[in-house]
Amino acid sequence: MKATIRDVARLAGVSISTVSRVMNAPETVVASKRDRVLEAIQQLQYQPNAFARGLIYKKSFTLGLLIPDIENLYFAGIIRGMQDACIKLGYSLMICNTDRDKERLLSYMDTFREKQVDGIVFASDKLHPEYYEKLVGCRIPFVLLSSHSDEYEIPSIEVDDEVAAYDAVKFLIELGHREIGMIGFGHSDSMSGPPRYDGFVRAVTESGLGHNVIRVKYANHRFEDAYQAAHELFTDHPGLTAVFCVADEFAMGTISYLKDRNVLVPGQVSVIGFDNLRMASMFIPKLTTIAQPIYQLGYRAAEKLHELLSTGSVEVLREKMQHKLIVRESSREK
Amino acid sequence: MKATIRDVARLAGVSISTVSRVMNAPETVVASKRDRVLEAIQQLQYQPNAFARGLIYKKSFTLGLLIPDIENLYFAGIIRGMQDACIKLGYSLMICNTDRDKERLLSYMDTFREKQVDGIVFASDKLHPEYYEKLVGCRIPFVLLSSHSDEYEIPSIEVDDEVAAYDAVKFLIELGHREIGMIGFGHSDSMSGPPRYDGFVRAVTESGLGHNVIRVKYANHRFEDAYQAAHELFTDHPGLTAVFCVADEFAMGTISYLKDRNVLVPGQVSVIGFDNLRMASMFIPKLTTIAQPIYQLGYRAAEKLHELLSTGSVEVLREKMQHKLIVRESSREK
Repeated sequence: MKATIRDVARLAGVSISTVSRVMNAPETVVASKRDRVLEAIQQLQYQPNAFARGLIYKKSFTLGLLIPDIENLYFAGIIRGMQDACIKLGYSLMICNTDRDKERLLSYMDTFREKQVDGIVFASDKLHPEYYEKLVGCRIPFVLLSSHSDEYEIPSIEVDDEVAAYDAVKFLIELGHREIGMIGFGHSDSMSGPPRYDGFVRAVTESGLGHNVIRVKYANHRFEDAYQAAHELFTDHPGLTAVFCVADEFAMGTISYLKDRNVLVPGQVSVIGFDNLRMASMFIPKLTTIAQPIYQLGYRAAEKLHELLSTGSVEVLREKMQHKLIVRESSREK
Repeated sequence: MKATIRDVARLAGVSISTVSRVMNAPETVVASKRDRVLEAIQQLQYQPNAFARGLIYKKSFTLGLLIPDIENLYFAGIIRGMQDACIKLGYSLMICNTDRDKERLLSYMDTFREKQVDGIVFASDKLHPEYYEKLVGCRIPFVLLSSHSDEYEIPSIEVDDEVAAYDAVKFLIELGHREIGMIGFGHSDSMSGPPRYDGFVRAVTESGLGHNVIRVKYANHRFEDAYQAAHELFTDHPGLTAVFCVADEFAMGTISYLKDRNVLVPGQVSVIGFDNLRMASMFIPKLTTIAQPIYQLGYRAAEKLHELLSTGSVEVLREKMQHKLIVRESSREK
């Protein structure tokens, strides 16, 4: 016969609510009572049932993660970081992949409400008013990851996309490049797309290379789209000697296109990526890129959500993490 | 005030258990009663609470997935397939990443028991007796994916690794290669490692090329290990003209090593991979590889688990799916 919370309370000689407090907020229980409860839990080998625990405490000790694309290695790194933080903090992690499908995303929010997750990390895409209202309607606290909200007061964590893009393009300019193109995010829900374009524009304009600001093509999140965008970019602007790509996968697509046209990278064209995926150092040539602290972003998102859940607020509302330029083989002096 | 199952039963003039049957096995309820219940559910906007539902029906409508490595693109494809099947079948999917850590794996099984998942898909690694006993002890039905069990009667789904490896090596032999090496799985929990080696041995032996059977080095699951293994392989056997790699990531590591030594692929050495990851067609050169139906494996695993949960058994215990040779740029006639 499995022990219940009632058995624990009886053996310890305390109320059921005291047992529950020992399990959830032990610091609120005086030491003598707490020790008796812990002894009783151990003696009875009491294991709280998640369902029952959910009904009593309204906590499921589960966090939800909404990601737009499970096949993007960026999110694999995010998941690892978030999961490690969840283990440390005592949560389970439930991951849902939306494939950028609005209906699916809204339906996963229902699932999370049904499962009564304690909080959600909403990764990467734009928080449409419709999503915001749904999340607020569900009364599930949430944190934005690799995204932020200007309209609402939502805790968020991300890198500074504008500065990161600026640093990438500035690096190309310092290598002597004057004819620089860009492959940016084309889909309308992209949060990092506009600031990365702004960073590109600021870097070239500041260096008197403003003629480059129109040398931009857009791709969605995949290699294949970037291959096509590179084709359009070099067809319109055959004189380019460097390309800033807003994702490592775009850099790989661009290099693959150039290779198929017998254009040498970095011999004739330098290419710089963004993210520093695990693949970046495996590719041929190895990618020069802007590293995001991907694992740490995931880890910190879980910590931030935990902070929100435990205290009702966060110390830093819109948090930024540091990016870093990693120079490998795909860039060279002009 | 939120409607409860009791309110629905009262309004429809039926028992609570009838309402529950309408929600879980509607075909067991006569149409007139069923319609009254459905009308009441709609009128009251009744939304079952997953926790309460779990206590009443002992079902959580959640499946668990245990994967060894979230950063391996193979599992990203598995997740997409499994998740799509879960959506179709009405389950949520909870994913846990074990990083091949035994303690973590056992602790996730506890989490799954606590959350009362209805069933688990156990992906890729060996089902040690310890894992088996724990899963059976938790009374959670489970299915093995990209793995199988010889000892126990466990439903499983995978490709035929021996035949797939045989086909890969046979293809290299048909291209005229006589000096063929292999980079295999080194970690001890690998299920596909031994049969892929067996396929290699059968192909070379059958063609009178048995001297190759010792030309094998091992790597764990990462690119970097394969790079090192390629170094050892070509140091010991500099005359190789072809290498069979048991994973696309190994093929990329091998090609990267050869490139760093100025050996042309496929000009001097042909390399064939295994899996057909999304990256396989992005790499330079594009990989010739054995395609696994990755998405379909994930999809079918969820269907199989659902079959097991709904009927208590499965029609095909050890199911195999078809692999396929994809010829791209990394292989050439000798």
